[in-house]
Amino acid sequence: MPTSDLRPIEFRSDNAAGAAPELVEAIVAANVGSALAYGGDDWTARVHRRAAEVFERDDVAVFPVGSGTAANAIGLSAICPPWGAVLCHDTAHILRSECAATSMFGGGAALRGLPAVLGDDYKVSPAALHQAFAETRWGDPHHSQPSVLSLTSPTDFGSIYTVAEVAELAGIAREQGMRVHLDGARVANAIVALGCSPADLTWRAGVDVLSLGAIKNGSVSTDAIVSFNAAASEELVYRVKRAGHVASKMRFQSAQLETYLTDDLWLRLAGNANATMRRLAAGLGALGVEFVAEPQVNMLFARVAPEVAARMRDSSLDFYEMGPGVIRLVTSFETTDDDVDEALRRIEAAVTG
Amino acid sequence: MPTSDLRPIEFRSDNAAGAAPELVEAIVAANVGSALAYGGDDWTARVHRRAAEVFERDDVAVFPVGSGTAANAIGLSAICPPWGAVLCHDTAHILRSECAATSMFGGGAALRGLPAVLGDDYKVSPAALHQAFAETRWGDPHHSQPSVLSLTSPTDFGSIYTVAEVAELAGIAREQGMRVHLDGARVANAIVALGCSPADLTWRAGVDVLSLGAIKNGSVSTDAIVSFNAAASEELVYRVKRAGHVASKMRFQSAQLETYLTDDLWLRLAGNANATMRRLAAGLGALGVEFVAEPQVNMLFARVAPEVAARMRDSSLDFYEMGPGVIRLVTSFETTDDDVDEALRRIEAAVTG
Amino acid sequence: MPTSDLRPIEFRSDNAAGAAPELVEAIVAANVGSALAYGGDDWTARVHRRAAEVFERDDVAVFPVGSGTAANAIGLSAICPPWGAVLCHDTAHILRSECAATSMFGGGAALRGLPAVLGDDYKVSPAALHQAFAETRWGDPHHSQPSVLSLTSPTDFGSIYTVAEVAELAGIAREQGMRVHLDGARVANAIVALGCSPADLTWRAGVDVLSLGAIKNGSVSTDAIVSFNAAASEELVYRVKRAGHVASKMRFQSAQLETYLTDDLWLRLAGNANATMRRLAAGLGALGVEFVAEPQVNMLFARVAPEVAARMRDSSLDFYEMGPGVIRLVTSFETTDDDVDEALRRIEAAVTG
Amino acid sequence: MPTSDLRPIEFRSDNAAGAAPELVEAIVAANVGSALAYGGDDWTARVHRRAAEVFERDDVAVFPVGSGTAANAIGLSAICPPWGAVLCHDTAHILRSECAATSMFGGGAALRGLPAVLGDDYKVSPAALHQAFAETRWGDPHHSQPSVLSLTSPTDFGSIYTVAEVAELAGIAREQGMRVHLDGARVANAIVALGCSPADLTWRAGVDVLSLGAIKNGSVSTDAIVSFNAAASEELVYRVKRAGHVASKMRFQSAQLETYLTDDLWLRLAGNANATMRRLAAGLGALGVEFVAEPQVNMLFARVAPEVAARMRDSSLDFYEMGPGVIRLVTSFETTDDDVDEALRRIEAAVTG
Repeated sequence: MPTSDLRPIEFRSDNAAGAAPELVEAIVAANVGSALAYGGDDWTARVHRRAAEVFERDDVAVFPVGSGTAANAIGLSAICPPWGAVLCHDTAHILRSECAATSMFGGGAALRGLPAVLGDDYKVSPAALHQAFAETRWGDPHHSQPSVLSLTSPTDFGSIYTVAEVAELAGIAREQGMRVHLDGARVANAIVALGCSPADLTWRAGVDVLSLGAIKNGSVSTDAIVSFNAAASEELVYRVKRAGHVASKMRFQSAQLETYLTDDLWLRLAGNANATMRRLAAGLGALGVEFVAEPQVNMLFARVAPEVAARMRDSSLDFYEMGPGVIRLVTSFETTDDDVDEALRRIEAAVTG
Repeated sequence: MPTSDLRPIEFRSDNAAGAAPELVEAIVAANVGSALAYGGDDWTARVHRRAAEVFERDDVAVFPVGSGTAANAIGLSAICPPWGAVLCHDTAHILRSECAATSMFGGGAALRGLPAVLGDDYKVSPAALHQAFAETRWGDPHHSQPSVLSLTSPTDFGSIYTVAEVAELAGIAREQGMRVHLDGARVANAIVALGCSPADLTWRAGVDVLSLGAIKNGSVSTDAIVSFNAAASEELVYRVKRAGHVASKMRFQSAQLETYLTDDLWLRLAGNANATMRRLAAGLGALGVEFVAEPQVNMLFARVAPEVAARMRDSSLDFYEMGPGVIRLVTSFETTDDDVDEALRRIEAAVTG
Repeated sequence: MPTSDLRPIEFRSDNAAGAAPELVEAIVAANVGSALAYGGDDWTARVHRRAAEVFERDDVAVFPVGSGTAANAIGLSAICPPWGAVLCHDTAHILRSECAATSMFGGGAALRGLPAVLGDDYKVSPAALHQAFAETRWGDPHHSQPSVLSLTSPTDFGSIYTVAEVAELAGIAREQGMRVHLDGARVANAIVALGCSPADLTWRAGVDVLSLGAIKNGSVSTDAIVSFNAAASEELVYRVKRAGHVASKMRFQSAQLETYLTDDLWLRLAGNANATMRRLAAGLGALGVEFVAEPQVNMLFARVAPEVAARMRDSSLDFYEMGPGVIRLVTSFETTDDDVDEALRRIEAAVTG
Repeated sequence: MPTSDLRPIEFRSDNAAGAAPELVEAIVAANVGSALAYGGDDWTARVHRRAAEVFERDDVAVFPVGSGTAANAIGLSAICPPWGAVLCHDTAHILRSECAATSMFGGGAALRGLPAVLGDDYKVSPAALHQAFAETRWGDPHHSQPSVLSLTSPTDFGSIYTVAEVAELAGIAREQGMRVHLDGARVANAIVALGCSPADLTWRAGVDVLSLGAIKNGSVSTDAIVSFNAAASEELVYRVKRAGHVASKMRFQSAQLETYLTDDLWLRLAGNANATMRRLAAGLGALGVEFVAEPQVNMLFARVAPEVAARMRDSSLDFYEMGPGVIRLVTSFETTDDDVDEALRRIEAAVTG
């Protein structure tokens, strides 16, 4: 509890932010007249067309689902057989923070974390992937067979894969007959940071299925599975339904996604998060605060003494302490320059004690 | 496609209706400031208190989920072991319309439809339940063991169980050590029709887990699992998460449910659907239209000649034909007396040719 | 408990019989020297060659498993997606007597019993299959999609499908893109009765996966999945292992199967069961006993008065009463003509009181 | 392929050994008369009584199953909820060599390998367990909840837990509400080496469910799940059936287990394996061969130069090379002193070049 009278400024998580006004408005606007349930509505038809444009590909399939966990676990179940293993970084969200939902939806599929290596920036490296292959007894039924490479970008630690890195890793995986999944809970932030096209980062780089995050970036109630793999798309029709993620009044989910993907709203929202983080980082740097790594999107890990962290907290700044001396600051689509400047003033005071 | 210029009037399904303005407004109103994700917010805390009041019981647990299928299948998985069978009427939604989601979440649990009997009103009868027990080899591992009785009220055909009927059936089931589930996709309509309390129809009658429908009755994006069974409540914390139904920005789901359960809004919304259906039925009766059964909530099955149905459709009335000569009409929270009166005028014209 | 001093004669089930001496001997003979585990042994190599000969097809795959339930459920899981339904007769063993193992291994796949029709001989009819298709909403994810037709032959009531019947039903199923499974717990008895080749009754008739029963017909500890479907064969390598049905010392399972399939032993064993049943039926007919149906393999259902059944039981005849006035008699590979003749003498005494 | 004319001597695995004559004979002897299927036979009744004596506890439940994978995965599924995690050493067989069977039978339960630590002898240490607890967010549904501690003894590397070690680790686990599983694929070898009672190493030390290995130690076709936990025992009746591991002619499985557990046969068989290994180790030590660790049961890892290994192989010694310069030698119930002495002569020749 902040002990000050200052207004709280939110840096805990983009998950703690509200919803983007445009997306709330999309729900309000969709509440006109009647429309068939379960996706037989115009909004859903339009979101498919919009996705085809955004991803530059007609046969893309979009499935609105209620959470990133649903997007990841159901999406993965469509490209990993029950006896397969999903390879991911040892710090991946699917491995650490989803209560093995992938194993449940995947019929007992295994999650295999590739060991973190110092300096790997929380990303899967070609070397780690080759090492996993070397340890695999391919075709031996005693062993879960590596079937999917799942990349998280941005990672839970704010680092991102370049388009070339995704393509290289996907290429290595595909040589082994594996499929590729991108956990894009914050993928808009990565796309903005990279300045690439959504197609380049995904299917052109070899991605079969994308978990398209929207909630952290301003949607009210929907993320989406985006499939570039025809066989997976066919399965997902059934898999999403059985999971209870086909919304009855799907127009309200689709309306959000339609707006989200129109006129680059999703990239503008993420762009704000990234830009305010850059402003924050610049200010912190000027104050002499040390970063664990240079922020690439909207997350920053910084080293501050416990007493500084305590004073920051006392000044109504909300953030997480990851361990002794390391704090995490996250900006969002709704963080303002004012928020940042005010926060920097308070941090300066905290730093100088 | 209607060939007339008349405004369409919706009688296909309450699923085709929009959302209640109060619930859209609840989302808009909840979009203030930041709030912890995954239920660590004030709206979620309040919806639990509200549910405790509505169900007159402190230890009730509420889990917002994205669909009725999710509510049913996940709720059932918490009270049925993998080797168990869920007994339900042969026409039950969980058996006919959810792609065996209950078997998936239930680890291969069986769904066993009790045979429909002429005149059973699509409801499980004590006789049918006793018959199922007589055919069961209790304790024999070759046979899925009856573990849950699932009642649907209202049924998909618009009939409802009285409180006494639920209590009698639940009592029979409990004598065999079974648990009881109520699929209440339209439970508010049943409660209004019965004039009973929510507690009387559920836990006081022996129900362990309720699928509390809200979406058909006006919510934008959330139904809920309501558990009166402590062991199930504990499991559901994990089961709902693994299913991807713990919303990140849960405040937007909880805000809807809070408003829904406040000041009897849910009952008023359902009350409108029931009342407009009574008005419609009275008018149809006056026109000499024959009903398959007297409507009890907001659904009516009527016998009309195919050419009459065709003329009705031509006059921009939207409804489903269930088979030759039988049509289904459904009202909703947003059907107005005007809609009904205008529809009756058109039907009169259709009937008289 | 028999109250007489007469030696018991077994007609309860071929499951109550012991093992064929040849197959016990196969185990004894295989206990020489060391051999690689998990199928890397010579016996397993030979059983594959033997199966290729017996089924007249090089690419047949054989997987020894520990029970008929394992053969059925694991075999079905390789040809039915989790959202699919296995269609079978309402009296099928997979539906009635396996505790929904198919749903468990199938990731929540549905079992759908086609209604029994008077005179259908407990067999799926083309009409029943067409009816099921007519009731199916193909491609609608609310509905488990019919994906496999499972036939049981002989049925649990001793009737068999002709080769033409299997081919007709399989053809109808395949037109819908379905696959075909044959539960052959007693398939050798059917093959002998039909005088057909194993290939004709299975893959030439459109069967993808066969549960090859051996245990009821004399093996000690192994049945087998026989796959004629390349995709299923590939999956089964993993599915059988994960189910714990890849025997460590597989040579002992394979040795049984090798012997079983060599020099028509399996058909000779089943032939004895069928022949002794014919002898029994002829004798019973001569005694004026009425049959529910003419026996086709090694099972007979006969109508006898309760007091006759009681006297039979008192004379140390072991059999099951299926209900008032109907008894089941089953012969096996080890029933002798002497057993039959002695049984007939006792039955004659029981009948004449 | 050995290039010599010498008789092969088997040191690859006890899995490559044949079956103990006593256990083959048990099958032969059980092939008398008829007996009810699925465990309704006298042999099965007796094996339960025998187990009660051996484990000094009346309420022990025994389930014969077809493999160690089945014993582990099905046994674990009865004590781990789907959202739970099974904690085990990073080298555990259930994690490394069973294709995630535990996740399949466990409804998506997670397997979590505790990191190997130099000098931990491939065993879970109290420190590793405490560390896992410290990293666990108890009660947080984002995280698989540690629910079972699974110990493997002997480990796949031949080390064993003392009774005190099992008790200490089980105590730590139980304090957290966890249950305890012992993967005893070679548990008889551990019991003999420790000189303890079966009860002391299992339930008295806090073990709920034991995978009782028999196949590696001489049985033809059966291992067993032994449950000391009443709730698990009740579940296993159904879980084992659904897995297809309830043998139709269970008498042949039970007869093996009865004989195995009678007059300490299982301990004598394991005792031979341990004793011949000691003899082998003594001889190797005299030859100056260096061990990775002193052998505790029937497995030895030794360092030999590649050219020595090659010469050993050329002299018809069968063993595995685990990597450059390390070989694995395993004795079994059927290894003789002669085998060992002859092997030592050949190894001496190989060492001296």
